[in-house]
Amino acid sequence: MTHRPTAAQLEACLRALASGLAPHQLRTNAEALEDYGRDESDLGTTPADAVVLAETTDQVSFVLRTTQAHGVPVTPCGARSGKSGGSMPVDGGVVLSLERMKKIKRISVEDLTAVVEPGVVTGDLMKAVEEVGLFYPPDPNSWEWCTLGGNVAENAGGPRALKYGVTRDYVLGLEWVMPRGEVLRLGRQTIKGVAGYDLVGLLVGSEGTLGVATEVTLQLLPRPRVVQTALLIFPAVETAARAVTAVLAGGILPRTLELLDDVSIRAVDGRGFNFPPGTGAAVLAEVDGNQDDAVFAELAQLSEIATAHGASETLLAQGDAQREQLWAARRSVSTALRALARHKLSEDIAVPRSAMVDTIQRLKAMGEELGLTVATYGHAGDGNLHANILFDSPDQRPLVETALRRMAELAISVGGTITGEHGVGLAKRDLLPLEQSPGVLQLQRQLKSLFDPAGLLNPGKVFQAL
Amino acid sequence: MTHRPTAAQLEACLRALASGLAPHQLRTNAEALEDYGRDESDLGTTPADAVVLAETTDQVSFVLRTTQAHGVPVTPCGARSGKSGGSMPVDGGVVLSLERMKKIKRISVEDLTAVVEPGVVTGDLMKAVEEVGLFYPPDPNSWEWCTLGGNVAENAGGPRALKYGVTRDYVLGLEWVMPRGEVLRLGRQTIKGVAGYDLVGLLVGSEGTLGVATEVTLQLLPRPRVVQTALLIFPAVETAARAVTAVLAGGILPRTLELLDDVSIRAVDGRGFNFPPGTGAAVLAEVDGNQDDAVFAELAQLSEIATAHGASETLLAQGDAQREQLWAARRSVSTALRALARHKLSEDIAVPRSAMVDTIQRLKAMGEELGLTVATYGHAGDGNLHANILFDSPDQRPLVETALRRMAELAISVGGTITGEHGVGLAKRDLLPLEQSPGVLQLQRQLKSLFDPAGLLNPGKVFQAL
Repeated sequence: MTHRPTAAQLEACLRALASGLAPHQLRTNAEALEDYGRDESDLGTTPADAVVLAETTDQVSFVLRTTQAHGVPVTPCGARSGKSGGSMPVDGGVVLSLERMKKIKRISVEDLTAVVEPGVVTGDLMKAVEEVGLFYPPDPNSWEWCTLGGNVAENAGGPRALKYGVTRDYVLGLEWVMPRGEVLRLGRQTIKGVAGYDLVGLLVGSEGTLGVATEVTLQLLPRPRVVQTALLIFPAVETAARAVTAVLAGGILPRTLELLDDVSIRAVDGRGFNFPPGTGAAVLAEVDGNQDDAVFAELAQLSEIATAHGASETLLAQGDAQREQLWAARRSVSTALRALARHKLSEDIAVPRSAMVDTIQRLKAMGEELGLTVATYGHAGDGNLHANILFDSPDQRPLVETALRRMAELAISVGGTITGEHGVGLAKRDLLPLEQSPGVLQLQRQLKSLFDPAGLLNPGKVFQAL
Repeated sequence: MTHRPTAAQLEACLRALASGLAPHQLRTNAEALEDYGRDESDLGTTPADAVVLAETTDQVSFVLRTTQAHGVPVTPCGARSGKSGGSMPVDGGVVLSLERMKKIKRISVEDLTAVVEPGVVTGDLMKAVEEVGLFYPPDPNSWEWCTLGGNVAENAGGPRALKYGVTRDYVLGLEWVMPRGEVLRLGRQTIKGVAGYDLVGLLVGSEGTLGVATEVTLQLLPRPRVVQTALLIFPAVETAARAVTAVLAGGILPRTLELLDDVSIRAVDGRGFNFPPGTGAAVLAEVDGNQDDAVFAELAQLSEIATAHGASETLLAQGDAQREQLWAARRSVSTALRALARHKLSEDIAVPRSAMVDTIQRLKAMGEELGLTVATYGHAGDGNLHANILFDSPDQRPLVETALRRMAELAISVGGTITGEHGVGLAKRDLLPLEQSPGVLQLQRQLKSLFDPAGLLNPGKVFQAL
């Protein structure tokens, strides 16, 4: 089922939109339509028919009301850094960008809260709160350009989720524009609160299909005064995965335990950081706290456990520059892998930690069987693995589709999920029925209908409409 | 609107229930009907017409199907330790108790997860996981007898919420019986996961009105190896509240910062613990971590900040026995206050920390103006205050109702909420419209109708049905 508008619907809708927006806010030039037709998912481009750059809550409401009135689909977006095609306007229509709503409205040291517009870049908030001694933990890989509204839509995670949780753990309140334009204030401004149903809980991670956040109240933490980073070198990825589990079972909760397998290391080696020869896998471990000695002692203990479980070397970052070097290597994995082959499709499975070694082995074996290169890296501490399939020829696409499906089945068979943090979007829409029963899918479709009876907000995402 | 069943409906329903349950599982004796007609809310008793003690998921499904088929309301309950009347069968009908489903099915050290039935007592899980070096943080005051199913229904908090969050932060997955009996598996078994809408997020805290949890998958943490506890003594409650904010602004995140005002201290003084003469308020502070020195240093720093902000004395708990003594004093406040007057009505407002001192002063002033004794204690660290009104004569009830309403208005006027952790239930149902707009209430009613079109599951709670 498509919601693609007719030319007449579109024309009438654009005329109505133009009447309520400044000229610079409504774009229909070919370049914009292309740009706003893709994200970071490798799913190609589905051009929009128009792009609106909203600047106020009223305008967001106006755009939603107007598109609904004209039967035109509307797809909200932030920085289009998503990995699952969630902001792609698959049926055309209007893309509603929140990127211009980028005011940090308030940071309260006393309340440990921040109030932001959805277009604020995650990294900008991180820096702003750090300047006053506070800490906003969620750190998706794209933190330097992704936006908080997008983080809310996707319930973004990141390396620090291991200790600090994901975006939903920090969202206290939302100003929320319903699909037909009604503006609601949901949730709370306080740290605790249980008045009524947890609508914020439902809406964080709803992938832009149930409404649009126009203001977000976030919880902050005091900034840990000390952070220590180490790179643990392993001969093989299985050894590294076992060590990760041993560290956590040993009572240590680092803020990150990031895994890189041999292919990932090959991809980033020499790009600002040289791995020791013979490195088969590595774990980037980071520990934080308020007392120098304690943090150092914890990192030493972590390193001891890792050594006892097969780590061949521990490289301790000396100072911020070295620390940044290690992180730059980790962050560049995704881009660097892309340089290894013409195409890259990235999975985002999460499995129980106890199944991680087995899962990694079976992913490698599957790759060999199908003749595909599989690179596995990611947030090993919480079992969230980014398995990437590298391939050069479009002819291999059917094989890759088989591989993706088998990865999803593998994750589910060990008690895992098809998506740990990227979302379902378009990329995994057809895989969701492998994980969730018809009853669960039906309940979600009913919720979607309750919020958006016409199905015009971000159509084609998460699940197939009936 | 009432859903109270007719005698004929009830008789037919009980006959049907009897056909599918063992005789000991279906109770209609007067004592049981009274017992299951009340909770810890001081709202009196609304007797049930029958009590079912379910032992399996199939039986829960059977009871829900059967009551729906006969148009009989059904109210789920755990330990009936709730504070907001959430488990009171206000329209009679069947009370569905989960207390017999109390198996801890699995604790995984490697995965840091537990799978439990809803009738497991919170404290039993805490102890079981501590024995294997793990930690389940949420600690509602009633942890020794409340159940995890009840904690999920109410999204229970507790002192440690300051550092570790509330129940919803630990619920990964649910086996959920829909109001008409359908059994769904929701959420995940992994630490991270974003497949589909966050139905678990919506259902935790839905106060038994959207279905019944029959299995809960919980996230656990490594157990902090060191805990240090101190009692900080202050001349007045405002000074104490200011010190709490200063500690947090000073970059320290203790696991608890519990406040007791002068009335609360008077109530518990001498019951196993003697406060120094002249104590006007106290803060029970607890810091945890893995390194002895670091935890001690943090507590010392906390104590310094408190002293700089007016604390007259710091009593450091020496060993577990003293620690338990301090906590017993804190935990007994609610009961001890009840001994001071014939009636006690407890509020559960939460306010932004920056408004806490002002709020406490205005609560006291309001009490004086109305001639009522107001005792304020609770989780000062996160601004969640339990303001208790003590009174002796039922004649004072209208005055008390006025006071409760004014407290709610006060909390809302400073950006707070009418309930930080107890839930709305019956107690605050009529206050919810002060906090939430008609649009937000309407959305919740629509959700309720989607889940429970006949409105037979736990009727009369959270909001007035239309």
